[in-house]
Amino acid sequence: MLRLRRRKRSGSDKLRIIPLGGLGEIGKNMMIMEFGEDMIVIDTGLMFPEEEMLGIDYVIPNINFLKQNKHKLKAIIITHGHEDHTGALPYILAELPVPVYATRLTQGFLSLKLKEHKLLNKTEVHTVQPGEKFTVGKFTVEFFSVCHSIPDAAGLIIETPIGTVVHSGDFKLDYTPVDGKGSKFSRLAELGSKGIMLLMSDSTYIEIPGYTPSETVVAENLDQIISGAPGRVIITTFASLVSRLQQVLYVASKHNRRVAVAGKSMTEVVKIAQSLGYLKAPEGIFCRLDELPSMPLNKIIILTTGSQGEPTSALVRIANRDHKFIQIMQGDTVIISASTIPGNEALVNRTIDNLFRQGANVIYDKLTRVHVHGHGSQEELKLLISMVNPRYFMPIHGEYRHLVLHGRLARSLGVPENNVFIMDNGAILELDRNSARIAGQVEAGNVYVDGISVGGVNNVILRDRQLLSRDGIVLIVVAVAKRGGHIVGEPDIMSMGFVDAREVEKMTDKWRQIVIKALSQDGDKPLEVGYIQVKLKEVLGKYFHQQTGRRPLILPVVMEV
Amino acid sequence: MLRLRRRKRSGSDKLRIIPLGGLGEIGKNMMIMEFGEDMIVIDTGLMFPEEEMLGIDYVIPNINFLKQNKHKLKAIIITHGHEDHTGALPYILAELPVPVYATRLTQGFLSLKLKEHKLLNKTEVHTVQPGEKFTVGKFTVEFFSVCHSIPDAAGLIIETPIGTVVHSGDFKLDYTPVDGKGSKFSRLAELGSKGIMLLMSDSTYIEIPGYTPSETVVAENLDQIISGAPGRVIITTFASLVSRLQQVLYVASKHNRRVAVAGKSMTEVVKIAQSLGYLKAPEGIFCRLDELPSMPLNKIIILTTGSQGEPTSALVRIANRDHKFIQIMQGDTVIISASTIPGNEALVNRTIDNLFRQGANVIYDKLTRVHVHGHGSQEELKLLISMVNPRYFMPIHGEYRHLVLHGRLARSLGVPENNVFIMDNGAILELDRNSARIAGQVEAGNVYVDGISVGGVNNVILRDRQLLSRDGIVLIVVAVAKRGGHIVGEPDIMSMGFVDAREVEKMTDKWRQIVIKALSQDGDKPLEVGYIQVKLKEVLGKYFHQQTGRRPLILPVVMEV
Repeated sequence: MLRLRRRKRSGSDKLRIIPLGGLGEIGKNMMIMEFGEDMIVIDTGLMFPEEEMLGIDYVIPNINFLKQNKHKLKAIIITHGHEDHTGALPYILAELPVPVYATRLTQGFLSLKLKEHKLLNKTEVHTVQPGEKFTVGKFTVEFFSVCHSIPDAAGLIIETPIGTVVHSGDFKLDYTPVDGKGSKFSRLAELGSKGIMLLMSDSTYIEIPGYTPSETVVAENLDQIISGAPGRVIITTFASLVSRLQQVLYVASKHNRRVAVAGKSMTEVVKIAQSLGYLKAPEGIFCRLDELPSMPLNKIIILTTGSQGEPTSALVRIANRDHKFIQIMQGDTVIISASTIPGNEALVNRTIDNLFRQGANVIYDKLTRVHVHGHGSQEELKLLISMVNPRYFMPIHGEYRHLVLHGRLARSLGVPENNVFIMDNGAILELDRNSARIAGQVEAGNVYVDGISVGGVNNVILRDRQLLSRDGIVLIVVAVAKRGGHIVGEPDIMSMGFVDAREVEKMTDKWRQIVIKALSQDGDKPLEVGYIQVKLKEVLGKYFHQQTGRRPLILPVVMEV
Repeated sequence: MLRLRRRKRSGSDKLRIIPLGGLGEIGKNMMIMEFGEDMIVIDTGLMFPEEEMLGIDYVIPNINFLKQNKHKLKAIIITHGHEDHTGALPYILAELPVPVYATRLTQGFLSLKLKEHKLLNKTEVHTVQPGEKFTVGKFTVEFFSVCHSIPDAAGLIIETPIGTVVHSGDFKLDYTPVDGKGSKFSRLAELGSKGIMLLMSDSTYIEIPGYTPSETVVAENLDQIISGAPGRVIITTFASLVSRLQQVLYVASKHNRRVAVAGKSMTEVVKIAQSLGYLKAPEGIFCRLDELPSMPLNKIIILTTGSQGEPTSALVRIANRDHKFIQIMQGDTVIISASTIPGNEALVNRTIDNLFRQGANVIYDKLTRVHVHGHGSQEELKLLISMVNPRYFMPIHGEYRHLVLHGRLARSLGVPENNVFIMDNGAILELDRNSARIAGQVEAGNVYVDGISVGGVNNVILRDRQLLSRDGIVLIVVAVAKRGGHIVGEPDIMSMGFVDAREVEKMTDKWRQIVIKALSQDGDKPLEVGYIQVKLKEVLGKYFHQQTGRRPLILPVVMEV
């Protein structure tokens, strides 16, 4: 009987950890932890679509595994307020309404999102203070502060029945952060000495040697640029980078400049961060955009959206002379205080070029350090591993190569080779008191959000969009007699995205001849609709390719009349 | 009469220089020089399409201005064999058959291209030795050797009736090049002391401080990696980077490894570079791919295409376990000895990730310096300007911001503010003996190559492709009676790239109802085809947007029966 009980318990004595994510990043958007009948989810982020995902708005992780385990799910824990950690929350809550835990500013950002999706009143959101513990099922969770490119970011210390797990969140060290709150690694050092079972750590900047510079480095450069600027200064950054906004306010105040805010997301963040006390605005520092014309040029700072060259953002409108209130004039200085997110390079470069064309002096990260990033470099990653001194190590938050490199780093610091787990999204890490192993795989992958549909767009639809986008479409309309199946009247053609309308016109005689020939060669036999369609695709496909070198989609419409 | 003659001559006493290019780069793909009745063109390059240019193969410069001046055009001069300086040549020669001048290896590369377009026999190609002078019309041209990421690259010294013009080509300094041929700046120093009217110089890497490292730096790192590699070494680089191929052969020979070549373009370049004496292969160094299975793993180097993650390249096939002869095995080392061309990041990263997934150790430029680029950094650009000491300066080969920064650099070195000309493509710089000014603009811009058509795809077609790619297309087929205009039979629907076929099915009853209601509301009045089309677009557009949040293109096909 005793043996039986043991065997029965052993199944539920296991901790299972499953990274999920969209696109190439692993465990970034979502992380599942399961112990027996309890399950928690860390982060619920989205990714922006890759180039070939035509028409897609967002990519979110596949949550079928969560839906199958709906009864186990106890909580969603959010480490910080960035889109790649929060953006899928409304879609997931719509299917899995569970309590959400987050720090105060993160919660502030979340409530904007939940409101927009009409989920705010239906959702139980708990505000967690760093250092405070809370229990959900068999997990006891403690947030610890980390520095990142958004305030109030956290890592997690998770006590499970078989040991403690540390999740780094997105972090860098930064001994001199703008808000005075450094990464609280002392708490980890304390725990590290007691023995930590598993560390999951941010791999984003594993390729970069040394330390990531402190946010305050930027302050010095902004100060120097603004003090030397002859006219207005226009600054763009990530709206959520509240510490950067804070620095701009400090420098503005020092140089007696006032700050106007342009762009919706920037305006929203300033409001919410100010109201929650995360952005300290010196008295009277803000002014409205319509006050600018009456102010001396060297007393003006404009804080604007558009750091990624987003086509409808304020900065891009300014660069294109398309903004209602702001036009570039000689003497303007524009500071792009942000890095370019991969994929946005062309948009950002075009914006910088257009600003220069209009006579602005543009300062961007390749010229002066007007931005530092929010993830730890190699030495910081080493420090975390050494301090936590985990038995098992799972690199997360990065593409596969980053995880491999981070795994190597951990081994070089003494984590045994077999205790390092390089996962793919959906892989299951199963741990008990004595061992850990990769034990199978759950459904994982990309779910496309397009319009109001989640998951409605599949790869067939995407492939059709790719085909349509490549050489366009040709529509051939043929009427055939119900009796006898012969062609009635003249076939008609329409095309889009293929060739110029006049070109189609020029080919009319020829393709009509081809169509008529193709459909009449079988003599007296009545033509079937299916046959006509296949035949028309074949003969017209061949003809148009000969004529143009292109392969448009050919869509025969056969009407029986 | 004397006055009259002078006035007449003054018009033709002017030198006009016009940069042309596709996309954002200025004067990179093509440069026109005109003096009186003589015109020469420097380089005829193409650009690869940007993300939004759906289905486009290449972008080439608009040559309408050249066509209008066909009678003046005396020569095309090619500085080096890269696609962005040569790729448009077949398209241009097809319209403007003029003699081409290039160095020996460049000519070798050009002949591959011309052969493919069946232009080789029709084209007069002159091989030019650096240091040699030749005259076309009023221009006397001398090539001087420059180092770049392809051998036999050249800059130009062009004597015109009103002064000497120097065109840098694409260059870096490199005191220790692999082929022993450094940039021949001594010739420029000599000329500089005599007075040079205009310098046009490569701005590509103006953002980078210091000096670009020498190509031989890569050799040391390759040597170290290969000597420590436990198994096979697979190396990819740009096929045209012959000096890199040379280094691989040297290192292979040193470590008693043999080299197999995979990929069409790599095979072609090895053949041509070897036959022209630009690639020196130690006896017996090459082996065939099918010999590999019988060779010891640590005696193998595979030189392959795929440095940009091109989907059909050998390396990508290997990474996807899709190559006929080569599969990754434990102990393989893969070296990506190339930088990633902007826009290809996602493809390259995916390839690296997949190679790691299969157990290869992948070494790429972020980890070790296994690549150096081919353009001079700030100190090299300074050296050129100082040595040439030009009266006028025109930064070229870069996007607008690069030209602005390069212009600033020239001013900081003493070129007067008003003598620096930041041009856009199509702008005319007009010089006479005493002055220079921007004097108007010729037609410029992107010409799209798609299939066999040059220029046949215009912005309307591209916009249609974008619309089609976003939410797909819905086709609604309605038959109406010729007499009376009422609907005959049931309307039918087809869609592509919009929603899943089953979803359309589900909506059938509803949209049919909407169509019938929309077309019957006007009572007895006969319906016109135009009206039906507009009406259907409106009501169905509204309905599908409500249902899906998407806006597919709606194409009503109305047949009168």
